[in-house]
Amino acid sequence: MTEWFRDERPCTTIAVDDRAVQYGDGLFETVAIRDGEPRLWNYHVERLQTGAVRLGLGAPDESRLRSALTAALGQARAVGSRSVAKIVFTAGQGPRGYRRIDSAETTILTGISQARMPPDTCYRDGVELRLCRTRLALQPQLAGMKTLNRLEQVLARNEWRDESIFEGLTLDTDGRLICGTMSNVFLFTGQGLVTPAITRCGVSGVMRRHVLTLLDSAGIECSVRDVAMEELWSSDGVFISNSQFGVLPARRCGKHSWQPQERFEQLASMVQMSGIEEGPA
Amino acid sequence: MTEWFRDERPCTTIAVDDRAVQYGDGLFETVAIRDGEPRLWNYHVERLQTGAVRLGLGAPDESRLRSALTAALGQARAVGSRSVAKIVFTAGQGPRGYRRIDSAETTILTGISQARMPPDTCYRDGVELRLCRTRLALQPQLAGMKTLNRLEQVLARNEWRDESIFEGLTLDTDGRLICGTMSNVFLFTGQGLVTPAITRCGVSGVMRRHVLTLLDSAGIECSVRDVAMEELWSSDGVFISNSQFGVLPARRCGKHSWQPQERFEQLASMVQMSGIEEGPA
Repeated sequence: MTEWFRDERPCTTIAVDDRAVQYGDGLFETVAIRDGEPRLWNYHVERLQTGAVRLGLGAPDESRLRSALTAALGQARAVGSRSVAKIVFTAGQGPRGYRRIDSAETTILTGISQARMPPDTCYRDGVELRLCRTRLALQPQLAGMKTLNRLEQVLARNEWRDESIFEGLTLDTDGRLICGTMSNVFLFTGQGLVTPAITRCGVSGVMRRHVLTLLDSAGIECSVRDVAMEELWSSDGVFISNSQFGVLPARRCGKHSWQPQERFEQLASMVQMSGIEEGPA
Repeated sequence: MTEWFRDERPCTTIAVDDRAVQYGDGLFETVAIRDGEPRLWNYHVERLQTGAVRLGLGAPDESRLRSALTAALGQARAVGSRSVAKIVFTAGQGPRGYRRIDSAETTILTGISQARMPPDTCYRDGVELRLCRTRLALQPQLAGMKTLNRLEQVLARNEWRDESIFEGLTLDTDGRLICGTMSNVFLFTGQGLVTPAITRCGVSGVMRRHVLTLLDSAGIECSVRDVAMEELWSSDGVFISNSQFGVLPARRCGKHSWQPQERFEQLASMVQMSGIEEGPA
């Protein structure tokens, strides 16, 4: 269950003429809360602000986002040591039509829920992936952002019901590997670590950014570039990243399986030491 | 102002955990109401039902849509001889995550507002168009449907504020002409009438379908195919179609202008005679 707040007050509804409802005109962030504090907060705020500007909405002040979050965390009943805050930022209410009105006030919703962590075995033995049939369209104007237009992810995630499959990987319409429905993906190859460029589609995850920053600080190269689907099968190993679970190794995708990678163990330690607590106990 | 109804009761809000709010997980129709009756109703119902099935939602019964509409029209205060009913169909409420739950009940909202008709001069002298910078991504899995993921249209429509420009045309990311932000487009060429295929992106409008059906009945050929942007400039004339205003000739787009077309006059008469009353007085 999620407890929702509008700005600083509890809410269960949103105005029907909010542009989020009518057009998906907005963005969201899913922030990991650990012991009451938002994790990778600056990255979340930066992505939301950059996205808002790209959509032609004014960037919300950090202080407004932070007040809303603090108020929500202070009032929510379900906050444990690990929770999730979903921040929804919308273009606000407006009359019929795609054209925004100049006087519109943006809406901020914050939803607090218990974190659902993957079992320990996922961190130790790796997770099972599948390759989704749903493809991501090439749309550089929206690439990287976590907009409220998420039908591609909805279609991809609803391709399977098998609980043993943890995540689905998606290709773009040209067949390049891009990301998971709710995660980013990294490949260990003979030429080193690789992660797909998020320039035409896909979401530029905050945990992806954190991992790339850690790797950079450690002097470990990670190539950010276009990745053909075939490279997935020829890679030595794969892991996925996400703001909630941190990093998780993949043990198989469809019929293809990967052996555990020592390189992943090293990376996972680095990630844990950086304050991302999730990992094998 | 729009008066909203949820199923058969007035409403001003929607549950914040409705998947329309969170993911744009749904569809809509904008139905012209003339003297209390929905126009081209069967086409609207068919598009909505086909879209719902394509999105993996069950198709809503025609009777459920019709009851909701009748109840809304019966209760709305603002219904004149010409109004607009916006029907929003969503995947319903659900927990966090892209995966839909099997027990979800879909939501139907109906919004009634006064029609805003273009002035008579638009029908007589034609409207001014612009070419939008925003491109439509190639996504065959969503093409043709009027989903609640409308950020491309929002971005395109917010490129201009100049009230003298009636509509913006959009190209796909490969540079083909597709449609307007809220209309479909037809070209008179030396080889006859042409309208862009809506197979990779764009909305397959009900008035476009009505016009194509009328043309077919009259034995007038209209080619439905890929249209390069250059064909817009080399065409003899252009018109746009939409469920509310019917058909409107274009007199210019940017620096390019078109002369009035006798062929358009003939078509406009056919459309008017078919029961689409809008047109030059």
